[in-house]
Amino acid sequence: MMFWHLLLAATLTQDTPTEREAAHDVVRKMGDLEKSLDVAALVAKVSAPNAERDKTVARARELMNKELLAMADDITKHPEIGFQETRSIGILTAYLKAHGFEITPSVADLKTAFVARYKGSHDHPALGVIIEYDALRGTKGAFHGDQHSAQGPVGIAAAIAIAEEMERTHAPGSITVFGTPGEEMMPPVAKTQMYEAGVFKGIDVIVRSHSSPSTQRPGPGFGSCCLNIDGVKYTFSGAPSHQMMPWDGRNALEAVIHLFNNIDAVRSSIRPEARIQGIITEGGAAPNVVPDRTAADFYVRYPDEVYLEQVREFTDNAARAAALATGTKVKIDNYGRMRDGVSSATLAELAFAYLKRYGGTKIEEAPGKPQGFDETGSVSSAVPGIGFSAATTNAPYHTYGMEADALTEVGHQGFVVDAQAMTALLSDFLTKADYRAAVQHEFDGIRVLFDEYRDSLKKVYAKPVVPEPK
Amino acid sequence: MMFWHLLLAATLTQDTPTEREAAHDVVRKMGDLEKSLDVAALVAKVSAPNAERDKTVARARELMNKELLAMADDITKHPEIGFQETRSIGILTAYLKAHGFEITPSVADLKTAFVARYKGSHDHPALGVIIEYDALRGTKGAFHGDQHSAQGPVGIAAAIAIAEEMERTHAPGSITVFGTPGEEMMPPVAKTQMYEAGVFKGIDVIVRSHSSPSTQRPGPGFGSCCLNIDGVKYTFSGAPSHQMMPWDGRNALEAVIHLFNNIDAVRSSIRPEARIQGIITEGGAAPNVVPDRTAADFYVRYPDEVYLEQVREFTDNAARAAALATGTKVKIDNYGRMRDGVSSATLAELAFAYLKRYGGTKIEEAPGKPQGFDETGSVSSAVPGIGFSAATTNAPYHTYGMEADALTEVGHQGFVVDAQAMTALLSDFLTKADYRAAVQHEFDGIRVLFDEYRDSLKKVYAKPVVPEPK
Amino acid sequence: MMFWHLLLAATLTQDTPTEREAAHDVVRKMGDLEKSLDVAALVAKVSAPNAERDKTVARARELMNKELLAMADDITKHPEIGFQETRSIGILTAYLKAHGFEITPSVADLKTAFVARYKGSHDHPALGVIIEYDALRGTKGAFHGDQHSAQGPVGIAAAIAIAEEMERTHAPGSITVFGTPGEEMMPPVAKTQMYEAGVFKGIDVIVRSHSSPSTQRPGPGFGSCCLNIDGVKYTFSGAPSHQMMPWDGRNALEAVIHLFNNIDAVRSSIRPEARIQGIITEGGAAPNVVPDRTAADFYVRYPDEVYLEQVREFTDNAARAAALATGTKVKIDNYGRMRDGVSSATLAELAFAYLKRYGGTKIEEAPGKPQGFDETGSVSSAVPGIGFSAATTNAPYHTYGMEADALTEVGHQGFVVDAQAMTALLSDFLTKADYRAAVQHEFDGIRVLFDEYRDSLKKVYAKPVVPEPK
Amino acid sequence: MMFWHLLLAATLTQDTPTEREAAHDVVRKMGDLEKSLDVAALVAKVSAPNAERDKTVARARELMNKELLAMADDITKHPEIGFQETRSIGILTAYLKAHGFEITPSVADLKTAFVARYKGSHDHPALGVIIEYDALRGTKGAFHGDQHSAQGPVGIAAAIAIAEEMERTHAPGSITVFGTPGEEMMPPVAKTQMYEAGVFKGIDVIVRSHSSPSTQRPGPGFGSCCLNIDGVKYTFSGAPSHQMMPWDGRNALEAVIHLFNNIDAVRSSIRPEARIQGIITEGGAAPNVVPDRTAADFYVRYPDEVYLEQVREFTDNAARAAALATGTKVKIDNYGRMRDGVSSATLAELAFAYLKRYGGTKIEEAPGKPQGFDETGSVSSAVPGIGFSAATTNAPYHTYGMEADALTEVGHQGFVVDAQAMTALLSDFLTKADYRAAVQHEFDGIRVLFDEYRDSLKKVYAKPVVPEPK
Repeated sequence: MMFWHLLLAATLTQDTPTEREAAHDVVRKMGDLEKSLDVAALVAKVSAPNAERDKTVARARELMNKELLAMADDITKHPEIGFQETRSIGILTAYLKAHGFEITPSVADLKTAFVARYKGSHDHPALGVIIEYDALRGTKGAFHGDQHSAQGPVGIAAAIAIAEEMERTHAPGSITVFGTPGEEMMPPVAKTQMYEAGVFKGIDVIVRSHSSPSTQRPGPGFGSCCLNIDGVKYTFSGAPSHQMMPWDGRNALEAVIHLFNNIDAVRSSIRPEARIQGIITEGGAAPNVVPDRTAADFYVRYPDEVYLEQVREFTDNAARAAALATGTKVKIDNYGRMRDGVSSATLAELAFAYLKRYGGTKIEEAPGKPQGFDETGSVSSAVPGIGFSAATTNAPYHTYGMEADALTEVGHQGFVVDAQAMTALLSDFLTKADYRAAVQHEFDGIRVLFDEYRDSLKKVYAKPVVPEPK
Repeated sequence: MMFWHLLLAATLTQDTPTEREAAHDVVRKMGDLEKSLDVAALVAKVSAPNAERDKTVARARELMNKELLAMADDITKHPEIGFQETRSIGILTAYLKAHGFEITPSVADLKTAFVARYKGSHDHPALGVIIEYDALRGTKGAFHGDQHSAQGPVGIAAAIAIAEEMERTHAPGSITVFGTPGEEMMPPVAKTQMYEAGVFKGIDVIVRSHSSPSTQRPGPGFGSCCLNIDGVKYTFSGAPSHQMMPWDGRNALEAVIHLFNNIDAVRSSIRPEARIQGIITEGGAAPNVVPDRTAADFYVRYPDEVYLEQVREFTDNAARAAALATGTKVKIDNYGRMRDGVSSATLAELAFAYLKRYGGTKIEEAPGKPQGFDETGSVSSAVPGIGFSAATTNAPYHTYGMEADALTEVGHQGFVVDAQAMTALLSDFLTKADYRAAVQHEFDGIRVLFDEYRDSLKKVYAKPVVPEPK
Repeated sequence: MMFWHLLLAATLTQDTPTEREAAHDVVRKMGDLEKSLDVAALVAKVSAPNAERDKTVARARELMNKELLAMADDITKHPEIGFQETRSIGILTAYLKAHGFEITPSVADLKTAFVARYKGSHDHPALGVIIEYDALRGTKGAFHGDQHSAQGPVGIAAAIAIAEEMERTHAPGSITVFGTPGEEMMPPVAKTQMYEAGVFKGIDVIVRSHSSPSTQRPGPGFGSCCLNIDGVKYTFSGAPSHQMMPWDGRNALEAVIHLFNNIDAVRSSIRPEARIQGIITEGGAAPNVVPDRTAADFYVRYPDEVYLEQVREFTDNAARAAALATGTKVKIDNYGRMRDGVSSATLAELAFAYLKRYGGTKIEEAPGKPQGFDETGSVSSAVPGIGFSAATTNAPYHTYGMEADALTEVGHQGFVVDAQAMTALLSDFLTKADYRAAVQHEFDGIRVLFDEYRDSLKKVYAKPVVPEPK
Repeated sequence: MMFWHLLLAATLTQDTPTEREAAHDVVRKMGDLEKSLDVAALVAKVSAPNAERDKTVARARELMNKELLAMADDITKHPEIGFQETRSIGILTAYLKAHGFEITPSVADLKTAFVARYKGSHDHPALGVIIEYDALRGTKGAFHGDQHSAQGPVGIAAAIAIAEEMERTHAPGSITVFGTPGEEMMPPVAKTQMYEAGVFKGIDVIVRSHSSPSTQRPGPGFGSCCLNIDGVKYTFSGAPSHQMMPWDGRNALEAVIHLFNNIDAVRSSIRPEARIQGIITEGGAAPNVVPDRTAADFYVRYPDEVYLEQVREFTDNAARAAALATGTKVKIDNYGRMRDGVSSATLAELAFAYLKRYGGTKIEEAPGKPQGFDETGSVSSAVPGIGFSAATTNAPYHTYGMEADALTEVGHQGFVVDAQAMTALLSDFLTKADYRAAVQHEFDGIRVLFDEYRDSLKKVYAKPVVPEPK
């Protein structure tokens, strides 16, 4: 047991020595929190045999096998990229409607987002299921290389089975499916836009399925798979002029080029864990005219959001300096943000226990890096929840192989595991007040430590003092 | 007379002190050549009253007024951009065919280029008429802001009138119309591609009409309106990698950026008359992937082609250095060249005399800068010829105003002037061996001086010696 | 006569089409002014035979031959670079003192500047002689490759001869020698510093001798040999840090590098007549420490001072942008300015007539470009005056050959010519009120036109409008 | 015991995930090697009480207290920077000579290097003592902020004591002191130059004392304090020209600036553990002349020498590309290299035991990162050896505080500890064949693993494939 806790601590998201130093106390307190919860005992108790839950889980399996695996195959074969998933949501919402869910279409000004609430109920405990359905953009067109095609069917199976359990047992509560478009793209950042529009308000727990090459779960804490990210667009305007008299113009291409040069100039003044990468999306119209409009698109990443702000100050100043030097003007548009989410052992370990119980293959015994159940961190840092990842493919993420696996046994088997494990956990959450309390207690504790960590980072990231030149 | 020669010399195309120094002897010899030709006397003699010519000119005017102005209006109203002028050439070739011309479509692998040869004859003197028909790309779509819509009708009027004179008088000779697409665009450089395919082989003189805000003609010599130009595309390939591990990639965007930086670094090492301007046509695909392919498009200009070669060495080395520094690879594609053309006083002054005789307005008495009748220099430095420019607009070149004028009296009046003047000169060239000899003599003389000038420039543009560093 | 005026106009200092356009009216008025003065007739009248002047000129020649050529040789053989010319001024001031001049040493806070005023008189007409004595810095040490070594002796010969004429004839007036150090260096800009300290206040005319490969004089107007110049130093401060943790520092070397990059980026947005050239004078201390202080020194040049201001805005913004992008700070020090001076035909043509009369060789008949008698323009745009340049060398400026010639017949002969011509003109100015009035009239007229020209330039140099990016 | 081995493994020098992956097998084998040696038992046996050793150690202490601490104080008070330590080596060699050592001055072409061999003997076991004596360059001049001033006295005390033991006991063997200048500077890299000249040939073990804020020793393995380093100078030559005609020159300042730009451009294509930092040592001579010579000095660092080669390829290509783009030429001078050295537990743990026994304060119980006894790695990767570091200061390295401490009790006490511990270990090595064999066995084993590690790295550092652009 001791060893396991040790591993949990080790998976905290501090990637750099400075972060680790800043996190010293937080890591210790996180260890204390987890020890106090005795998650292993909790999981053992909650997941003990239960006939009602078995019935519900069996119903989810039945839905998958009878209709929803076929639906998943259909969506896989008709991929639609982000914010254009009209066919897909047509199929998903029709099925939900047919099973008693009320549909609110195009929530938060997103055409292909929707909310499906069982009989419109907001009662507590309020259970939420997030589903995604957008395909990837490949060189041969859209394709489901991330198996989002199965997320809807899996989530729907669980939601309907739980709805039926509520009907059957008269357990108080509600169940809502959130249709969230365009996970692979930004802008807009769909889940953040939905969160800010209040779409998830009042929800007590959220689950999501995501296909995976192995059966796994995150450790408890806060973090993200791939650093905190700012998506930023820099647009420059200059003045056009014929190439023969360029001095009558102001060159917006030189400006965008110097944005990159200026960033390169400070790469060694920025901590090496940063990842700053951009492209030029508009680079001028014709070689015989001084370009008067150009644009660049950047992803700026850092392990924590506190220093990320300093990195952004560098990149924004790079843009301002480029404009100043070239006599052009710049517009800075921070169009998207990805931030650390929260993951809780009380949810993750129960989910993992069920994933194994229902037949998950290629088990990763050690918990992974802490990370939220949504990629933006907006929802997963505000609402307790967990992502389910049974093994569903033998290929890496974002490949044609992963798409192909969605249509065969390896995918189908895993999707059914996910549906059952998700249903089981939701059934426990619906019916056990103690368990709900433990989940909330851990979640609140981690959020407090997350704040403490950020405060601590603010102190270690002091900026160097630059005197006036003499 | 003296004064006039002085002005001719003054209009030579030497834009820089170095060029003027190098051209010192050439300018003197050019003065001698022109003096020896006594162009004023020649023009007076050739253009003396002639009933046969009057008949031919009247026929051209009749064709314009009866049918071809209407054809010009039609083409003006149906603009087609370069290399897509299928409707336009359909109308033009149908008319030519109906008047006894044999059409060879899509010459030199250019879909909308054609050759129309009267009864297929190649007899000498072989007269040629170049016509253009492509529209400009405007923000509201294609438009005839350069009045190429009227070039076809004007040239066809002259060609048919001359063909009929040959039938009528049994004068030996031939007449050919060259349909040349895409003047406003490159690549491809249509006239150069046609020239290299041998399309103009055996032609003794070429005329072309081009609309203009004034009635004018170039001085004798060699030159171009807007410097010698190389169009060059630089394409870089790198290796893609996810933003999280950029060291597994090679960044083609950094390469193309450093192409620009490297050129900027040597701007002060290049003579200030150069104009080097580029755009980035491909700047990367996604901000979270190291760009593995980028491209830039440059126009590199210099007053003469000799130093232009050195400028190109700088820009090509800039590209090679960018690839070397970034671990990428570069492809250099010099997709187009514009060079000095030759203009002859024997042709230009006769053309100008007729432009005035037939009612050209807004006369510019002083000859303009020497320049060829085609914008690439490929044809006009190889075949004697002259461009006709009667005033046809009150607006500047490349404007909506100029397009509008094509449909009204100012345009119509000028087009008819051009058609008549062109017909008169072709009639003289067809029938007067002395005149043909004088034209050829001047043209050959200027070509020799042009070669001498380039040889002389090669000497003045010595490169600085850079010793090995110690 | 007409032809001569034509040439004068042609030598005006408008180097660019834009300047020429802006100067159109000014050039015409300058022509009117010069025509109204009838300088040829004036020179003929003023320089008519005059026994008193002959006596004075003979005395100057005697001083040169007996003592001052030897003094010039001595100074040539003991070269001292700018602001270190203590031996040289020791010799010069001792001789002046011995001939009745009162010495004020180290004027305007310049150790090796001095004023030598004959018997302390400030009476009018107040004649001034500027002398220079600094050597060049060569790879083998200081050397008199610009023959400043002879300026002192020549100017002293004239000053003493005039002083003696005043004594002899009791002509009212005064004569002052201005010892001006460091012509070849800045900062400080010695003559500007002296001018601003009021050293030249009340002087009516100033003469200066400068060695030359030919006997020549400037045309009337305003101008400079080598464009208007701003000398600017950019100093950057950052924060030091060990190479192992560069993010704890701010890199001042990156800043100064980006100053250059930023300037290169706008070279094509600046009119091509500009000359912007810099060096890095401080480039960091040790490769294992992030540089926290760097500096660059620039000469920024343009044909006129109006657009030069815009060029400076570009270079200063380049520095500010470099600091902004790199998180460093910058200090901008415009340590020196060279501006157009005024040259008057009434002085230049009389000087030229005497240079020829007293034996100047290698005569350049056509007047040169207008330019003041001092290189800064500070004095020569405020006080009428003229530089004397008899041929004194067969070598180009700033060469060891020119130094060698200072010690042989070619130098000696020219120095004596300069001394005599200078003396003759000063004698005329001292004694002829009409001549003085004509000089002042022309000078005032040119100054008015100079102002008009600058106002006119301000209008043509409009900046392009850059809209906000959308 | 187990725990201790675990720590040893943990201190291996693999700084990056890639290195750790490549080192997986090597780390395991290193653990096996260390376990097989049972160093703790060996140390216990070797350091068991021994009267002869006690006598020798007492003699070293006596020499320190009677004369050599005073000598250290004297050298501290007369600091001399690298390669200028003539006074210091005068004192050191005189003392050694007086105690029977034969001096070979200025070995390996280094004026202030020397070899002092006791009675000239090369017998085995051949013991070596490296001493350093150069001061740091501070803003107030040279100072002994690294306490090299005491290294000579400490090493001499041990060497003389051992020499006397050999005399006394007739133990076979020899003792040599190596005077190595300029540790704080390069070029030249003194120890590498001495090593390559064969100065250390035949030596069986080498010891060196280095002052420290704590009493410590390295773990066994290979490594360096501060990454592998290449010192590289890039010198560019161009062609000079006056600023008014820069096209007649080639700008070497633009070249050196683009060296930096090119490096910045690939910073994100280089693994983030690299440290590349440079300064501009020559940045042009005068702002009105195109700079024709510039130079930059770089330290290029990476945790291992295998990838360092790839980093150097980037920086060298950056220089070549800068020359190519600017028309200049470049010379690349890799003037110095710092590489991993080897440290052996058999030596380090015995040394540490004695440091503690003789009174070392501020003990660091855990072994430090593996690293050689010399900073270049040249000697310490070829000859077994160990550095002695008793606590001798309360200040950080390279400070005025550390210099001050050299003159007071904290320094003196530690120097005497170092001298005694060094003497004790040398006495053991001299007299115990078993111990010598164990040392050699471990050293050979580590060298084999070091080679294996480098081979393994060569495999993981594959370069990305860049296709030809299409």
